[in-house]
Amino acid sequence: MTSDIYLNAITTVRGDLVENNDASTLGVPAANYERIVKKTGVHSRPIAGPGQYTSDLAFSATQELLAIRPQMDVGTLIVCTQTPDHLIPGVSSRVHGLLNLPTDCFVMDINQGCSGFVLGVQTVVALQKSFPSERSAILINADTYSRLLRPDDVTTRVLFGDAAAASAFSSRREGLRFLYCRSFADGSGYDSFVARGSALRIGNDVPGVYMDGPAIFNFALRTVPDAVRLALEENGLQVGQIRKFIFHQANSFVTGQLARKMNLSAEQVPENCAYMGNTVSASIPILLSEQMPLLERGDLVMAVGFGVGLSWGVALFEYAGGPAD
Amino acid sequence: MTSDIYLNAITTVRGDLVENNDASTLGVPAANYERIVKKTGVHSRPIAGPGQYTSDLAFSATQELLAIRPQMDVGTLIVCTQTPDHLIPGVSSRVHGLLNLPTDCFVMDINQGCSGFVLGVQTVVALQKSFPSERSAILINADTYSRLLRPDDVTTRVLFGDAAAASAFSSRREGLRFLYCRSFADGSGYDSFVARGSALRIGNDVPGVYMDGPAIFNFALRTVPDAVRLALEENGLQVGQIRKFIFHQANSFVTGQLARKMNLSAEQVPENCAYMGNTVSASIPILLSEQMPLLERGDLVMAVGFGVGLSWGVALFEYAGGPAD
Repeated sequence: MTSDIYLNAITTVRGDLVENNDASTLGVPAANYERIVKKTGVHSRPIAGPGQYTSDLAFSATQELLAIRPQMDVGTLIVCTQTPDHLIPGVSSRVHGLLNLPTDCFVMDINQGCSGFVLGVQTVVALQKSFPSERSAILINADTYSRLLRPDDVTTRVLFGDAAAASAFSSRREGLRFLYCRSFADGSGYDSFVARGSALRIGNDVPGVYMDGPAIFNFALRTVPDAVRLALEENGLQVGQIRKFIFHQANSFVTGQLARKMNLSAEQVPENCAYMGNTVSASIPILLSEQMPLLERGDLVMAVGFGVGLSWGVALFEYAGGPAD
Repeated sequence: MTSDIYLNAITTVRGDLVENNDASTLGVPAANYERIVKKTGVHSRPIAGPGQYTSDLAFSATQELLAIRPQMDVGTLIVCTQTPDHLIPGVSSRVHGLLNLPTDCFVMDINQGCSGFVLGVQTVVALQKSFPSERSAILINADTYSRLLRPDDVTTRVLFGDAAAASAFSSRREGLRFLYCRSFADGSGYDSFVARGSALRIGNDVPGVYMDGPAIFNFALRTVPDAVRLALEENGLQVGQIRKFIFHQANSFVTGQLARKMNLSAEQVPENCAYMGNTVSASIPILLSEQMPLLERGDLVMAVGFGVGLSWGVALFEYAGGPAD
């Protein structure tokens, strides 16, 4: 029987700059700015500085993780990003090299957006369970969407932040015990969120992110509650037994509507998008890292990712105590 | 105890065009062309046609796979590519949508180069074993490197071909039984093979693939024999017990040197780069699909990937018979 896998620790890094959602930054009249902030709940967002790329954020977050876990023997290093420095090679290769990690290491980039933490966890847990090892795995979620946004597209610019999170997994009984994961996809919604002109298919459009906001919103409201319900059912749980739902921080409006549709209490649905914005696949581990110190042993936590692809997924954890427990 | 995983079938697709390594195509004097062909063993390569992108090759290969396996219930779809249509979303999303695959499906792109089949197999097997399912998994390896090569860089242009392979995995006892896998990385060699200006980190260089050929060659000769030796040791095997080594088809010179260093017979080391070139992560499954009909039950096959990252890995299979056995 394979042993349980634990998410032991998470470290996070933000882009060097902060962009405020105010009239002067966005170049829109004050009334519109106030409406945008009120609806999205996003006041400001971290943004990568000039010369700061995804691999830099990924490296810094991982360096911090290794600083608090100097004894960690890294056997797996996975970077989830949609905004790599280069198409070839992956961001994970650069992080591996800069940190002098062992050559006996499974190193790979995965490309997923706002569901990328859940799919990344599923991948890491699968590798740890199937190729059993006393070694640790690191999942890095890192993106710099700001570099792909069109400056004049206020609807996307107000939402996205640049950040990275590095999560350590091992069989050591500490942090969040992995219980369950399930991922979904609907490629028929491929066109709802596309970074046109970002890689090899070049068209006539101005390059940048094109988001069909209403389509994404309707997709989230349609699929996420069902996925959560299924996860609860498959684990014999009621919604009230989940201490925290860590929703992908699309924005306050989306998470609020999801919470309302599922009858969740405000206490169950923490948020941080007011000052982080939507940091893509890093948003769940960043919020999780803020919430981890507030958990008590036995608390159940459900991570819920959804977004571009379309892609969505649910992961369930149980808090097993901190390093001192 | 989880059941074994089998690689049941592989379908392949080539780019619509063929580019010959001759003087008129390459724009080099005849003497140089003859030297290049003699050294690399690559006479011609499939190349994507105008308007043909990685997702088109991936889609066609998968469509063919579903045509010969119409009963397949796809629970996992992974695309390994370094040349996606867009950074956002992944190629896998487009394939999922075009083929109307179930929404209850784990869909993800991975980014790896010439080791990408081995790392992809390890990922698929891990997911199938850890989240047990009667459903099938598809691994697609697809790239169109030709779009990233600099037209005047003959050293890379003569090598790379555009193609895709789709591989079906399930617990159904047919094809190649998965036995063993191990992957390695050395990010200190990140700069040996980079597609500059291909994503978000833009510099002053002419965009395109920059390959330090001698560094990659030395890396392969240094690491691959050790990885093969370790795989043999860990499985209690001698080199003579492997019926076929399916090396990544970097080029004839590299595979020849590897075979010589490991004392392999010509029979053990099939090749197809004369007319395929180096099709990156698709090269191993394409060669494997050619060799599969020649295998007898009980034959051991070792897939060996190595390249950009730097990244390398070994996967071991045993032939369990065809669909009629």
